[in-house]
Amino acid sequence: MWGENNSSALNSRFDHKNNTVCNINASPPQRAAALVAAMTMDEKLVNLVDHSLGAERLGLPKYDWWSEALHGVAFSPGVHFSTNGEFSSATSFPNPITLSAAFDDALVEAAAGIIGSEARAFANAGKAGLDFWTPNINPFKDPRWGRGLETPGEDPLRIANYVKHLIKGLEGTEDTRQVIATCKHYAAYDLERWNGVVRYAFDAIVSMQDLVEYYLPPFRQCARDSNVGSIMCSYNSVNGTPACANSYLMQTVLREHWGWTKDNNYIVSDCNAVHNIYADHHWLKNAAQAAGAALTAGTDNVCEAGGWSTDVVGAYNQSLARKAVVDKALERQYEGLVRAGYFDPAQLDPYRSLGWSSVNTKKADSLARQSAVDGIVMLKNDGILPMRFGKNQSIAVIGMWANDTKTRMLGNYNGRPPFYRTPLYAAQQLGLKVNYADGPVKDTGNFTTALNAAKASDVIFYFGGIDVSIESEDLDRTTITWPESQLSLLRSLSALGKPIVVIQLGTQVDNTPLLNNNIISAILWTGYPGMYGGPAVFDIITGAKAPAGRLPITQYPGNYTTRVPMTDMDLKPSAKNPGRTYKWFDGAVQPFGFGLHYTNFTRNPPVFQSNLLLAECMLPHLDLCPFPPIPVIVTNTGSHTSDFVALAFISTTQGPAPHPIKELASYKRLRGIAPGQQREVELEMRWGDLARVDGNGNTVLYSGAYCLGLDVPERERLCFEVLGGDIVLDFWPKVGGGGNGMVRV
Amino acid sequence: MWGENNSSALNSRFDHKNNTVCNINASPPQRAAALVAAMTMDEKLVNLVDHSLGAERLGLPKYDWWSEALHGVAFSPGVHFSTNGEFSSATSFPNPITLSAAFDDALVEAAAGIIGSEARAFANAGKAGLDFWTPNINPFKDPRWGRGLETPGEDPLRIANYVKHLIKGLEGTEDTRQVIATCKHYAAYDLERWNGVVRYAFDAIVSMQDLVEYYLPPFRQCARDSNVGSIMCSYNSVNGTPACANSYLMQTVLREHWGWTKDNNYIVSDCNAVHNIYADHHWLKNAAQAAGAALTAGTDNVCEAGGWSTDVVGAYNQSLARKAVVDKALERQYEGLVRAGYFDPAQLDPYRSLGWSSVNTKKADSLARQSAVDGIVMLKNDGILPMRFGKNQSIAVIGMWANDTKTRMLGNYNGRPPFYRTPLYAAQQLGLKVNYADGPVKDTGNFTTALNAAKASDVIFYFGGIDVSIESEDLDRTTITWPESQLSLLRSLSALGKPIVVIQLGTQVDNTPLLNNNIISAILWTGYPGMYGGPAVFDIITGAKAPAGRLPITQYPGNYTTRVPMTDMDLKPSAKNPGRTYKWFDGAVQPFGFGLHYTNFTRNPPVFQSNLLLAECMLPHLDLCPFPPIPVIVTNTGSHTSDFVALAFISTTQGPAPHPIKELASYKRLRGIAPGQQREVELEMRWGDLARVDGNGNTVLYSGAYCLGLDVPERERLCFEVLGGDIVLDFWPKVGGGGNGMVRV
Repeated sequence: MWGENNSSALNSRFDHKNNTVCNINASPPQRAAALVAAMTMDEKLVNLVDHSLGAERLGLPKYDWWSEALHGVAFSPGVHFSTNGEFSSATSFPNPITLSAAFDDALVEAAAGIIGSEARAFANAGKAGLDFWTPNINPFKDPRWGRGLETPGEDPLRIANYVKHLIKGLEGTEDTRQVIATCKHYAAYDLERWNGVVRYAFDAIVSMQDLVEYYLPPFRQCARDSNVGSIMCSYNSVNGTPACANSYLMQTVLREHWGWTKDNNYIVSDCNAVHNIYADHHWLKNAAQAAGAALTAGTDNVCEAGGWSTDVVGAYNQSLARKAVVDKALERQYEGLVRAGYFDPAQLDPYRSLGWSSVNTKKADSLARQSAVDGIVMLKNDGILPMRFGKNQSIAVIGMWANDTKTRMLGNYNGRPPFYRTPLYAAQQLGLKVNYADGPVKDTGNFTTALNAAKASDVIFYFGGIDVSIESEDLDRTTITWPESQLSLLRSLSALGKPIVVIQLGTQVDNTPLLNNNIISAILWTGYPGMYGGPAVFDIITGAKAPAGRLPITQYPGNYTTRVPMTDMDLKPSAKNPGRTYKWFDGAVQPFGFGLHYTNFTRNPPVFQSNLLLAECMLPHLDLCPFPPIPVIVTNTGSHTSDFVALAFISTTQGPAPHPIKELASYKRLRGIAPGQQREVELEMRWGDLARVDGNGNTVLYSGAYCLGLDVPERERLCFEVLGGDIVLDFWPKVGGGGNGMVRV
Repeated sequence: MWGENNSSALNSRFDHKNNTVCNINASPPQRAAALVAAMTMDEKLVNLVDHSLGAERLGLPKYDWWSEALHGVAFSPGVHFSTNGEFSSATSFPNPITLSAAFDDALVEAAAGIIGSEARAFANAGKAGLDFWTPNINPFKDPRWGRGLETPGEDPLRIANYVKHLIKGLEGTEDTRQVIATCKHYAAYDLERWNGVVRYAFDAIVSMQDLVEYYLPPFRQCARDSNVGSIMCSYNSVNGTPACANSYLMQTVLREHWGWTKDNNYIVSDCNAVHNIYADHHWLKNAAQAAGAALTAGTDNVCEAGGWSTDVVGAYNQSLARKAVVDKALERQYEGLVRAGYFDPAQLDPYRSLGWSSVNTKKADSLARQSAVDGIVMLKNDGILPMRFGKNQSIAVIGMWANDTKTRMLGNYNGRPPFYRTPLYAAQQLGLKVNYADGPVKDTGNFTTALNAAKASDVIFYFGGIDVSIESEDLDRTTITWPESQLSLLRSLSALGKPIVVIQLGTQVDNTPLLNNNIISAILWTGYPGMYGGPAVFDIITGAKAPAGRLPITQYPGNYTTRVPMTDMDLKPSAKNPGRTYKWFDGAVQPFGFGLHYTNFTRNPPVFQSNLLLAECMLPHLDLCPFPPIPVIVTNTGSHTSDFVALAFISTTQGPAPHPIKELASYKRLRGIAPGQQREVELEMRWGDLARVDGNGNTVLYSGAYCLGLDVPERERLCFEVLGGDIVLDFWPKVGGGGNGMVRV
């Protein structure tokens, strides 16, 4: 059995009182160094691995470095949930992909604060370590990646801000750390198993530009800007060198360039990543060499999950890791624990009082529900949502996670939540007449129960998508379309002609068939919403809450997987790569940042009161009445005298659908602009240039939002609001008696 | 032989002095009515056709209504160029597709003023009629249409403004019209011959919305807003009724709804369009019925080109066109001529003094050259243009129109220009060493001469594209790609590795292979530039003038022709139609409005002086230094309280290519915005969010233009300029000695 932390120094109190490690007046480096100095080499060598044995002679307890808390305290070797009673559960927030979709860093910090408090309460009770191997911040570049759900998505800025606030929440803002966060996996790790290539042996070939611009910014935030307690090196190689033996990444970049040495922060290897250095990468020949290379390159703690030995002892004995390296690694580890209060008296540790009463608090409960709500992204709505349920209304609640008892909503790296609120539960709580049926994930089943439930109902709520049986650690996807079994069920349900609302679990799949299906009235994306998934969804459905989340990832078309191998790390488009993420790929089904609302937002719009302005116009034809001119200033910043054509295109979604992409509204050729010269022009429009023609031929000026896009390609977009109601600028003559009125004489 | 206008009343003077038609104190309607009242029915019936016989008894001369002046006085039945000497030539401006590309309505008016003066000079000399069947204003909706070159392009607003200024130029602004313009072809005419369907029999099925929104606005400009003298009805049917028998279009819309009865303006039929009513549309049974229907529906003059009789006499005799209809048609025709001074004494006609000295003036000459220059659109330039030619520099001038003697640059409906300046001529005028070779249009030829010319030269100028042997009246295209023979020659030329500049004749073809070919350094599109095409091109090449034209049409991908039949008149996308024009089709190779410059223009940009702002920043890492915050105001204009995520994406073309589409720069979730509530937020960015990473990993803030796009989909775009030079925000550590520095221990 893996190490337990119930003999943690936090409770048993490290008893070698004379050692400076317990002297709270000494500096953390001094305290850590004193402890290491007191250890024999034999004692040292059994404390460089995740399941550290401690030193009985010194009263240093065993310590398991492997605790997890991705979206709440989570099952892991270092964490021990009791079977029942105290510490039998912890709050389960949405997975990062969902929490990120809320695009609210204060929310991230608040949730992380609760996770950190609960984690520290577990640690204080000897039910967990003080360090947690979270967050997972590799940018979710490829939609196939099985661990994308563990991340805040595909954008490095979004991830960096997310992790900044997450670390603040987890580690706290006191001098003593609440817990130690571990940013993983450093670096360029985003492949599990694809086409025979496994993460343990994969060599990620990354250009320096992509590395610095895309793969590293989240880690720079952790190291340079947030001074996180710990970082984990990853399984893969980067440009030929295994990450956990990569002195350039760990020493040159992380510690030297980013100055992550202000504290003696430590690096932990992913589990067996040091073993992989020789056994899978074949970069070295044996376990001792691998351990020596890893420790010497900057790895401070070797995770040996699964019982593989990485032979730290051999590395030392064969002089592959010298004493100074061993001591430095231990000093870093123990300084981490010192800074987390591990060796302090309880009364001086601001977090030591956290206990079972700090777990599953009302605040945690309400924040878990709010996070799940806030992370929901509405991808389609024809107006069916929000839905006011009438008396006696019957609804079908169908699908693989509608009444899931398999913790599907918890995603990856979950713990045991205090309860688990399914959609079915939430629907029943609303007092509705609910007809429930299970649904398939991948395999085609019998649809009879589902169809009967639907037939007995007024509206169909379908809870489908994908789950961790399709995407998870060690399991990359090969397709990113909907499972055919579910499409088949949706087709059968659609044939009933009753409105369908799809509520979608998992990261993105190509929703094209659902978006094109008019019977499917709405789509809500939930990602992995955690223990409050069911009520959160119905908070949105009923309109108790309004959706405002945005996709933190691109929704790629299904054929994307055929267009670039997962092993291709290039971000930019090329002949064999259509480009990756919204930054370089513009063929999204629905783009990064997409999300619908129940209401309409306009931004900073100038407002034009059409009825008043038109009332002032004396022209016989209202479409010719002038719109207030748009001033545009153009500067020639180049070195040739030149004319310039100022073009302005109007676009709107007012008036009859479909709507044109844009329509030319004004233009003016400015002549002979000299280098450095500035020229102002007032672009003239008429109200008719904003109008649309309806099905009867009437020219109508519709109230609402308009934007004026300047130039081709567009350089600038001026948006404004037209108020005053829909005004017919020209009543079109009706065709006469003879059918279309174009009668023969 | 078709009618001559050399016995025009303008010179011979209508001698029935007692008839009120010559009484300048009577109103134009009174004068026209008096003339008609004096005619016998036999006399009337021979004056309702283009080749009107006049009335010898009354001294009314023959009159040929068919004169042309699309881009200069043009060959046509009513126009007579002398073999040499006076009236043997007239100024040839660019075709409308090129003149439109200049996007300068003042230029259109100036050119049309000259065309009108020269046309009137021809008329005064008895070498032309007073009415001209120009402009052609059917929107150029389908790239295959053979007559697109005659039009100002695909956008109804562009066409309407073009024609507004064109009519002003042609007809003049005096009480007496300089000439009578004829807006054609009314309506929904844009197909010649496609897949067995011919224009004479084609029934254009058009929705009311498309009709009013797209097909008619140019005609509304002519009729309602410009009170043009004449309109021509078209060959095709519209929704089942031949246009020239279409009382809804001609009476209800044109005359009643648009009020085109202020003057008794007249409608002329396209040539044989009345014959087509029975012979091709089979809408009626014989010539008399067709003539009766046309006249009764509102056609006033029947063009009988080619000798087909449309039996106006039979129509009257069979009571299919009643006396009142005949009289009204004649009154309209003659009121048109009255208003053009046809029956006035010379001294009272402000334009009667125009003569041969008013043709081919210096002003006309310089405007023809300027128009050709201004209509050129630069589609590609890697920096080769403008080109400063050195001493002894040799250039190859190759291609089908490089030394064309076949009037290719004149396009359609041309006259005889006073001279014809080819590219070869212009190159030689520059004093360059020129190696000339012809080139193919469609058929593959022998490339030896071309390759030899290229081999002997430093730079290759290739004058290719398409001409009126590929696109013209009665000749729609079936493909819109480059002729394979020319691509083949261009490949052979490219293999020489010398820079190539392509100068392109014709409307648009899919330039993808040229855009993707790095040897082709630049592409200049000329459309049909008229008699000054050669010098105009070299004005641009040498930088004497800078290109500023914009495409007035979409450059469609080659496969577009397989995606929608020409007969489909719908503008909007559907299952069988990818959408038409830039308004509805977003897959352009190069879009409507596209055009490059020699210089850079920035528009109204706020300027940020990065060096000064960064100098004030005290943070240790420059990338973290704050950028001035962007204030954004959001208003909930809907009816639900909702959160809103404000998203801002940065985009730039500064820094290393390729450039990302956009990158997330800032976001903020605004909570609980009530209906009607306004909320202001300052979006925060750091200078690092504007930076790019170079190939060495350095993070660089590049000077130049940036835009901040708000929301997904984008609602607003704020652009600004960063000055202060390129600044390295973070120098990235170099990899060490061992190759990539990630060395084994």
